[in-house]
Amino acid sequence: MIAGNLTLTTKGSMELIDITAMVEDRLQAAGITRGICTLFNPHTTAGLTINEGADPAVRQDIIDGLRTMVPMDHPFRHLEGNSPAHIMASLMGSSLTVFIEDGRITLGTWQRIFFCEFDGPRTRSLHWRLISYN
Amino acid sequence: MIAGNLTLTTKGSMELIDITAMVEDRLQAAGITRGICTLFNPHTTAGLTINEGADPAVRQDIIDGLRTMVPMDHPFRHLEGNSPAHIMASLMGSSLTVFIEDGRITLGTWQRIFFCEFDGPRTRSLHWRLISYN
Amino acid sequence: MIAGNLTLTTKGSMELIDITAMVEDRLQAAGITRGICTLFNPHTTAGLTINEGADPAVRQDIIDGLRTMVPMDHPFRHLEGNSPAHIMASLMGSSLTVFIEDGRITLGTWQRIFFCEFDGPRTRSLHWRLISYN
Repeated sequence: MIAGNLTLTTKGSMELIDITAMVEDRLQAAGITRGICTLFNPHTTAGLTINEGADPAVRQDIIDGLRTMVPMDHPFRHLEGNSPAHIMASLMGSSLTVFIEDGRITLGTWQRIFFCEFDGPRTRSLHWRLISYN
Repeated sequence: MIAGNLTLTTKGSMELIDITAMVEDRLQAAGITRGICTLFNPHTTAGLTINEGADPAVRQDIIDGLRTMVPMDHPFRHLEGNSPAHIMASLMGSSLTVFIEDGRITLGTWQRIFFCEFDGPRTRSLHWRLISYN
Repeated sequence: MIAGNLTLTTKGSMELIDITAMVEDRLQAAGITRGICTLFNPHTTAGLTINEGADPAVRQDIIDGLRTMVPMDHPFRHLEGNSPAHIMASLMGSSLTVFIEDGRITLGTWQRIFFCEFDGPRTRSLHWRLISYN
């Protein structure tokens, strides 16, 4: 079992940030060759997702789609005014699991791992645990 | 590998129930100190999510948001009339994975684990498996 | 640790395909009795979900619900025209984790595992890893 943390700073109020290289760097620094890695996001107005990384338009379209689906102007009860961000966090999910082979995350051709900021900008952290095997 | 089940009774048709203490109690009763725990919900009109637990308004806002997004009055095919609950179940997801350190679930400051009832009230169960490590 | 892949061919542009038997067959062929299995979908316009399999209407209602929620005619930036499929992929998620007991996936009474095709028809693949225990 190998454990670690990541820190990142988001710049927009809502944005998807490609964290694939950051995660792979940490795994490689820890000498990990094969395993199952779970990433966990400890924030309630942010999430994690895997989607297309080749065309940056896709990550913007995901934000646009969520902003259209989630009722941004609904008279929500929570007084901080960020209930849409909480809803988006639950829609994307707080954790995800990927496989590691030869020190690389075995994503599909177009896939990248994204940290989803829904109430930024903020400094955010991520936790990960890896079950290693030979 | 340590396995277990939980049972809970929901009271409303749609509600988020904080199950964090219930899960931690079971882990501590099993003498678990460190590990990776996966919770699995075996129901098709309920889900699991992690979100803010400090302000109870947030969990109500998540329900309200989902009720606004999912077409509640759409002429769905399924004759039981609970297709919106099935859709919400898939949106929230049927399982989630958390980390355990020092006998506690390593959630973020504001995070709690919620069982999402979308077609209650009912008696519901949950399964969990833990991969322990030192 | 036991690893494997599945291939399937989808027939519609959007459909949910029950892959439960296919996954169980592979696990049983590998002689697996107990464990935790994670399925990973390497595609960015497809997802994985668990929902009701008894009434085929439910899987169609999930597609209908998603098509109503996600803005299908929004002027998205991504030029391939399949941004709604990318959004649905993130809503359903790219991986899921199930438990194995006595060589069977311990799903609830009405649950089945579905591969969610959102931009077919295509040939699709899935990866899985199993942590076995006694």
